[in-house]
Amino acid sequence: MINAVLLDLAGVVYDGNRAVSGAAAAVSRLRASGLPLRFVSNTTRSTKHAVLERLASLGLPVSSDELFTPAEAACNWLRDHRRSPHLLVHPDLKSDFRDVPAADRKAVVVGDAGDAFDYRLLNEAFRQLIGGAELLALAPNRAFKDRDGELSLDAGPFVAALEYASQTTAFVLGKPAPEFFRSALATIPCPAEHAVMVGDDAETDVAGALGAGLGQALLVRTGKYRVGDETRFEPSPTAVVRDISVAVDWILAQRCA
Amino acid sequence: MINAVLLDLAGVVYDGNRAVSGAAAAVSRLRASGLPLRFVSNTTRSTKHAVLERLASLGLPVSSDELFTPAEAACNWLRDHRRSPHLLVHPDLKSDFRDVPAADRKAVVVGDAGDAFDYRLLNEAFRQLIGGAELLALAPNRAFKDRDGELSLDAGPFVAALEYASQTTAFVLGKPAPEFFRSALATIPCPAEHAVMVGDDAETDVAGALGAGLGQALLVRTGKYRVGDETRFEPSPTAVVRDISVAVDWILAQRCA
Repeated sequence: MINAVLLDLAGVVYDGNRAVSGAAAAVSRLRASGLPLRFVSNTTRSTKHAVLERLASLGLPVSSDELFTPAEAACNWLRDHRRSPHLLVHPDLKSDFRDVPAADRKAVVVGDAGDAFDYRLLNEAFRQLIGGAELLALAPNRAFKDRDGELSLDAGPFVAALEYASQTTAFVLGKPAPEFFRSALATIPCPAEHAVMVGDDAETDVAGALGAGLGQALLVRTGKYRVGDETRFEPSPTAVVRDISVAVDWILAQRCA
Repeated sequence: MINAVLLDLAGVVYDGNRAVSGAAAAVSRLRASGLPLRFVSNTTRSTKHAVLERLASLGLPVSSDELFTPAEAACNWLRDHRRSPHLLVHPDLKSDFRDVPAADRKAVVVGDAGDAFDYRLLNEAFRQLIGGAELLALAPNRAFKDRDGELSLDAGPFVAALEYASQTTAFVLGKPAPEFFRSALATIPCPAEHAVMVGDDAETDVAGALGAGLGQALLVRTGKYRVGDETRFEPSPTAVVRDISVAVDWILAQRCA
């Protein structure tokens, strides 16, 4: 039984500044079916506002409460735990944190800072950590598909560097944190076992969703997908499909069966 | 029974550009005792030649065949395994690799590149690794005592980042690789169980040496030492002493006992 669909964005719905072929029509078919839909993205190079604008410009209007981002989850965590963020994130993402109240204790927040990752900033974050700050990873992704079509380092390796240096373990806010999937499903509401996730990352999207208790998870062969990804992580995908169009056909067919 | 002494350099013999108080006299006492002595350093910001010059300028003449560096071990590995180095090291260290013969296959060599660690170079190294290059870590140290007296990121965290990103495990050349300690002792020659190591790093020097089978390892409370280090890693030090002077007294007393 499928009662809700969670969709990844980069590599599934869009690739860089272009929509994945057939993505807008596929999302429309899902919406027309009446199946509740949420978007769960680990992208941390843009504000939530910028992601929504990009989606609209691609003919995919998404409302703010349908989109879940790690930065938003981090802001909630910081408020709940009364911590000020020490940001090691992309310059474009900083404004997502401007409303977090100041606090005495700190948490180092690591996103995909891209070219902004340098020795000085990593060392400053390290010194905060050995001084007692907590470590928050917006996303632990190893790599993403870069503009040149090749894989490039995502936030995860820099989180791993800081964990190793400071002998701490990061708290992960985005996928594959079970709480991230569940917080999106809670707004429907839909129990995890009746939900399906669609993503291009066999680790954070697929194994992550299944590990969080989702009933099914589809791996699309777009975006960062590389041959063999489906066997690289456990649990393995419920199905591997060409793209989001086939994923939506699969979901709608399951519903009718 | 102690038949040989291995000494770490940074934090034990010198601290930045200054000798540790009493270090030159302590090394002289050791030499006068007739105990064979080797220096095993994980420093990768300077060439072997520069390290020898620094030692001489501090009144501590050391010959080239008494000093063992990870870069030298890496060059031997690259020759033996017929690999060309893709260097992610401090600019000052590059000349230590100039005599490695060219080869078709590559190995990414990571040292403490300091400010030269940036996103672009790390990403280039990552792409080499997912393209099939091997990963060599000159040293896995987490941190070192920086010029401002605080800890700063050493090579280890960047090795951890690349391991995580590419899902590979680095081959370590310097301490705590058992082969590194043993190759120094082989030049004496002295069986590992009759040797003592003196270092300020409870993990790579002390636990590393004991793990490599050395009979004893002393932790000095100079350099990067922080209160509690002696209980942070296993195996724990044979003894914790104030500095190299007390370490040498301890070693010479053991010899007479």
